[in-house]
Parts: sequence; C-alpha cells; structure tokens
Amino acid sequence: MDTRATLLRHARDTLATLRLEGRYREFARLEKRAETFPRYRLHEADGDVREVTVWSSNDYLGMGVHPVVLQAAEAAIREHGAGAGGTRNISGTSPLHAALEAELASLHGKDAALLFTSGYVANQAGLSVVLAALPDFQVFSDAKNHASMIAGMRGAPAARHIFRHNDLAHLEALLSAAPPEAPKLIAFESVYSMDGDIADIGAICDLADRYGAMTYLDEVHAVGLYGAEGGGIAERDGVAHRVDVIEGTLAKGFGVHGGYIAGDATLVDFIRSVASGLIFTTALPPVIAAATLASIRHLRRDGTRRAALAERAVALKAALDRAGLPRMPSESHIVPLWIGDAALCRQVARQLLTEHAIYATPINYPTVPRGAERLRLCATPLHTDAMIAELVTALRAVLPERKEHAA
Amino acid sequence: MDTRATLLRHARDTLATLRLEGRYREFARLEKRAETFPRYRLHEADGDVREVTVWSSNDYLGMGVHPVVLQAAEAAIREHGAGAGGTRNISGTSPLHAALEAELASLHGKDAALLFTSGYVANQAGLSVVLAALPDFQVFSDAKNHASMIAGMRGAPAARHIFRHNDLAHLEALLSAAPPEAPKLIAFESVYSMDGDIADIGAICDLADRYGAMTYLDEVHAVGLYGAEGGGIAERDGVAHRVDVIEGTLAKGFGVHGGYIAGDATLVDFIRSVASGLIFTTALPPVIAAATLASIRHLRRDGTRRAALAERAVALKAALDRAGLPRMPSESHIVPLWIGDAALCRQVARQLLTEHAIYATPINYPTVPRGAERLRLCATPLHTDAMIAELVTALRAVLPERKEHAA
Repeated sequence: MDTRATLLRHARDTLATLRLEGRYREFARLEKRAETFPRYRLHEADGDVREVTVWSSNDYLGMGVHPVVLQAAEAAIREHGAGAGGTRNISGTSPLHAALEAELASLHGKDAALLFTSGYVANQAGLSVVLAALPDFQVFSDAKNHASMIAGMRGAPAARHIFRHNDLAHLEALLSAAPPEAPKLIAFESVYSMDGDIADIGAICDLADRYGAMTYLDEVHAVGLYGAEGGGIAERDGVAHRVDVIEGTLAKGFGVHGGYIAGDATLVDFIRSVASGLIFTTALPPVIAAATLASIRHLRRDGTRRAALAERAVALKAALDRAGLPRMPSESHIVPLWIGDAALCRQVARQLLTEHAIYATPINYPTVPRGAERLRLCATPLHTDAMIAELVTALRAVLPERKEHAA
Repeated sequence: MDTRATLLRHARDTLATLRLEGRYREFARLEKRAETFPRYRLHEADGDVREVTVWSSNDYLGMGVHPVVLQAAEAAIREHGAGAGGTRNISGTSPLHAALEAELASLHGKDAALLFTSGYVANQAGLSVVLAALPDFQVFSDAKNHASMIAGMRGAPAARHIFRHNDLAHLEALLSAAPPEAPKLIAFESVYSMDGDIADIGAICDLADRYGAMTYLDEVHAVGLYGAEGGGIAERDGVAHRVDVIEGTLAKGFGVHGGYIAGDATLVDFIRSVASGLIFTTALPPVIAAATLASIRHLRRDGTRRAALAERAVALKAALDRAGLPRMPSESHIVPLWIGDAALCRQVARQLLTEHAIYATPINYPTVPRGAERLRLCATPLHTDAMIAELVTALRAVLPERKEHAA
C-alpha cells in the first residue's frame, strides 16, 4: 500500500467534511498589544491590518499585560535568558521554578505543587499517573470535563464512569454501584468553560468522603479570579482543604503560560517522580516562572482586578439581557450566547468581525456538542462600558433575523 | 476502601524503592545566568549559593542567552505582553506564530509547519493523530525512540513493531513480515539523545519507499545544530525532501521553548484540525515565538555557533580520550561517559558538584536502561578550553578507583 497517498486522501476527505459542516477552523491572526488590550490588531490574509475588540481572551484579568508582570518578565529575560535549556531534572530547575511551586502550594493551602508545560499536560499526566497507580481504579468523571482530563483518564487502565453534568444524584448512584473495595477518584471542574456554571465542590467532597473516594478538581477557569487571594472556587467556598488535587493554569487568570497541580507532598512527589510528561520535557522558561510569580503575588494581595472582573461580568450580562439577546445562564465571568448551528455560528462571528470590528470565536463541535454552538464572551477588567455598548449594538444588528434558525 | 490512604501508601512505597535504587531524582536548583552561561549559580538546600559549570544543558548553542534572542524577547514582552491568552483558535494566534511556522517550514523545505507547546506534545499529538487516521496502521519504531514518541504511538490503536536500534536489517525484516496492504509508518530519530549516534536517514527512506511506508523523523537534538542552515541531519544529508514528517524542538538548539512538526500542507492541516493536544491548549506566548524567530533567522544565515559546537565536541572527546576516561562512542555533539550503576552514577555526580563545582546530571533508568547509567556531557560554543581541562581533572579525581564497579 502507498501509505502516503492513502493518508493524504483521508486527510483531504476529513478537511472537506469539516468545511462542509462549517467546522473548519481558520486561526485568525490577532496581534495582542500590551498597550491597548483588549484591542488587538487583526492581520487579514490580504495583508490589511485593523484594530478589533477581542471578547474571546482567556487572559481574564488582563494580567498578561499588567506592568508588574511585564517588568518581571523583562528583568528575567535579561538575567536568565530565554529558554530553560533542560528538563526539570537535567539542569532545567531554576530557583524561580521552586519559588513558583511554593507560591502555588501556599495559594491553595497545600503541601506542594508541581509545574507542567501546560494545564493540558498537567491534567493528562496527573490523572493518568494517579489512575495507573492502583489496580481496579474507578474514576467518576463529570460529562463536561475538559478534553485534557479525558486524555488523562484514557491514559490509564481505570474504569470510567461518566456522571451527568453537575448531577450529584447521578454521581452518587454511580459511586454506590461501583465495587466498594475498589479505589475511587472523582474528577471534576469548578467553573465549566463553555457554560460558565459552577460545581458544588463541598457536596462532591461529602460524597467522596461517604464512598472513600479521592477528589481531583480542575480550577483552570477560576484560579486568580475567585477566592480572597485568587485561590479559586475552592478557596471562595472554604473547601480547598477537602480537595485532594487541585489543578490549575498559569495561562488564564495569571496571564502567562503553563499549568500545575497542588496537593499532598507525598502524592506530588510521586507524580513528579513517575510522570513521563514531566520527566521527558523541557522545563518552563525561567521568564515564565518569574512573570507568573509576579502575577500571583500581585493578585494575592490586591483584589482590585478580581472585583472589576465580577462587576464587568454583571454589566455585560445585564446589557445583553436588556437587549433581549439569547444569553445562556451563567454563574461566572463566562457569558455564552446561544447560536445552535455550526455554519451560522461561524457566519455571525464573521459578520461581527468584518462589519463591526469585534472578535468573538465561534465555539463549535468538538468543544461543545453539535447543535449547541455558541459565542463565548468574557469581559475583562479592561473592557469599557463603551465596548459593551458596541458589542450589544453589533449583536443586535447581526443576530435578530437569525434567532429563528438558532431555536 | 480509603482510596487516599491506599494511594499514599503506594506513593510512599514507590518513592522508597526509588531511593533504595539510587533513582530518586532531586532537582538541583540551578540559576541560569545570561551573562555567564555555562556558569550557573547553584542554590543549595541550606541557602548557600555558589557558581558551578554546567555540562548538562540542552541549550546546545547557547542561543538561549544570545543577544539577538534576548533583544527580540524583551521587545516582544513590551509590545505583546506575557501570555497568549487563548488557544490557537480562540484568539491565541498572533502573526508571530504564523511567521514562525512559515520559517520552520522553509527551514525544512516543507509546505507547512505547526507549533505545539513542547516537543513532547508535538510527538505525542502528531504520532497519535497520524496513526489513528487509518485502520490497521503498522508503526515501526526504533528501540531507542524517545518517551514522547512512545506516548504518541500508545495513544493510537496501531500495531507497534520495535526494531533494534539503528538496525536496518531488522527494520526490513519487520517491514517485510507485516501485511502488505496495511498502512505503515517508520518512526525514528536522527541524533539519539543518550548515545549521540546518528541514524542513516537516506537508507531508512529507501526502505520506506520499498515497503510503501511513511517516515516520521524526530530531529530535536539536531535542529539548529546540523545542516548548512541548521535544518538538522536530514538537511546535512540532503534527504529532508524524502522524510514525510520532521519533528523538532524550539527548546534545545534554538534556545527557547516549544516544539513543532513540518510536512505536507494537507497533512499538517489535518493534524492541526483534529489533534486534541493542540486544539485544547493555550498557544505559546508571542514572546516565545518572537525569540525563536530571531534565533532561527540568526542560525540560518550565520553558521559560527554551529561550527564552534562541532569544534568544541571534538575538543571535549579528545581531552576525555587523552585522559583515558570511559567515553562512549558518539558521532555527534553528545558525549556520554559510562558509569553503569545507578547509585554510583549519582555519587559521581554529587562529588563533581561538591568537590569540583561541576554539574553533570546522572542519567538513570528510565531515561537509559538499568545498568547503562552514565553522565551525558555537552560542550556548548561557550565552554572554554579551561573548562574542559577542569572537567577532565575533576573526572580523573572522582572516577578512577570506581571504574571497576562500573565494568
């Protein structure tokens, strides 16, 4: 068989299907500007450059452009250079990595923390190592868990039980039906990215206690944003001490790059010692650690941006509601707007961009189920009232005659 | 069952075994200094700080501390901030990402390239997507392939055939025994990290042609270092056009962070469109892309550091040989020194550090097989003759009476 020709034919067919279904992704070239965020420069394919307001950044607090972060980053570049030059074990651990891990452990009230090159890798490596550690592991996974958690669970021989999203009765039914003597882990998120709803962490910990299960909590959309010091929903709810492993990102609320887990010292040391995705990969650059440290330390002592984010989310939701736009319910800073069709979702996003200089990524399958396509909007502390007004005006111009199609 | 207690007991037992076998890894805290590289500041557990010469950096060319790279990084931080703030599809693609991908494609003479958060993820995602694309895929994998390639192969339902390291007769035997009508991929590296030997890429491509197989080549220890423009061993040997997928890193020869694949435009677009490890993770920060672009562009037009690396490797090998030290054969810049015992390897490294201010990471299982423990030395262009002389003196002081144990 001519493998190359066969594979390329399959690739072409797949890409044609994606285009036909309106799911082919073209990456818009958006130049993030420290001085004007959330105003970016859009670079068009024809070479044109124009300014647009971005509503789809996960730099939720704008910390990625905060002066304390940029100063720390610039100084670290001058002092330590660009890359780490090695894995954590092979000359790649700087005192900055150690300090950042101590800071993250302290933030979550845990013994220890461990950095990974991304939140995706943290979940994939962390979950697969834990679930491969004991025979007959049973993992109970929220139906809306992120792709990276699913990758982690698939990487271990554990039996997977999917509970309906945030449905604790269903979770309990599954827990009680599983073998009592098997080890158990409940894997879930606090803030769910595409819906903006929030898990009842305390109630899930109650169930974990009742059935002898451990808890693994993904707080990537919450760290930096919620809790008195930005420790996430678990801190806000006063239950961080009840969660076994808290996983987080440095790339959203903290505005930089990378991911981590925090937990018991022995457990973290175990994961550190056996996880392939940690051992065999270059450490995060010292500049990333330095910038993140500056970001976290700022956010722990100064809640201004956290309060502003909450206020902006309320303002955005109220403006959408006043305009009668199809906002989906959300308990968080994430504000999804219902579209319900892949091609339409792409078209609405395109019109916002070309006619109104507004960028909002169309969210299609596999990020959300087919038929549940949406725009996902986030107002950072740097989105002004005028920007919200512009967004509402643009959505009203683009959406009304299409609401029937979306229903 | 009390899962937490059971897991912690297992974790403690595993860590105790690692300690007993001399394989427990403690990450030395090494502060990389742009101004003094390869002299780092070692931060001891007791708070002491002292300068040491590092022989275990994969910043092979010292590009991570090159002025053109640092200037590009500082400018990018000021202009674009710290993090990308989104996945590639969700506002995280800057024109810098696109420019870097075009540069990498051009470097390798390919249609297209695709960035990943690390070389590990590039291999894991790239291989698993390709091998899952067609039913009955047969993958032929060199026995010394990196953990990240193994992770990629395990992530797909393909049948794996392991050929003895660089043994093309064995590879051909396996190819000819496999079902003729099944799709086939040969996965291998150019420079093998722990031995420093080099694959015969052209001969492997001949076999691929004969059996209708595709080729996937990991050049992470070669890009930037070999070839007229730093395109790797495939460029040096004039065979890059015969390789289907070239995978590389931005974190070694280029001195920065991240990984990539390069290949046919349709194939790269297919991987871009379906790889979970790309779609669901935050893009590399713009500063990383900017610094890498500066590094690659410099290395393509200026071979000074490449020539210096080759000269330094020759000088290091000659000095070790003159001193009768147990250097292992190597065709590359990687210079392994045989130890052959995990605990001894650790002890030698410790003595080098405490008595001679020299840092060389002990390389133990699972990075190399048990009983094949070694020190792995690399002389960058910034390692001086005096440093080589110091290293040899130190090794002679630490090693002689222990060579019996290692035999």
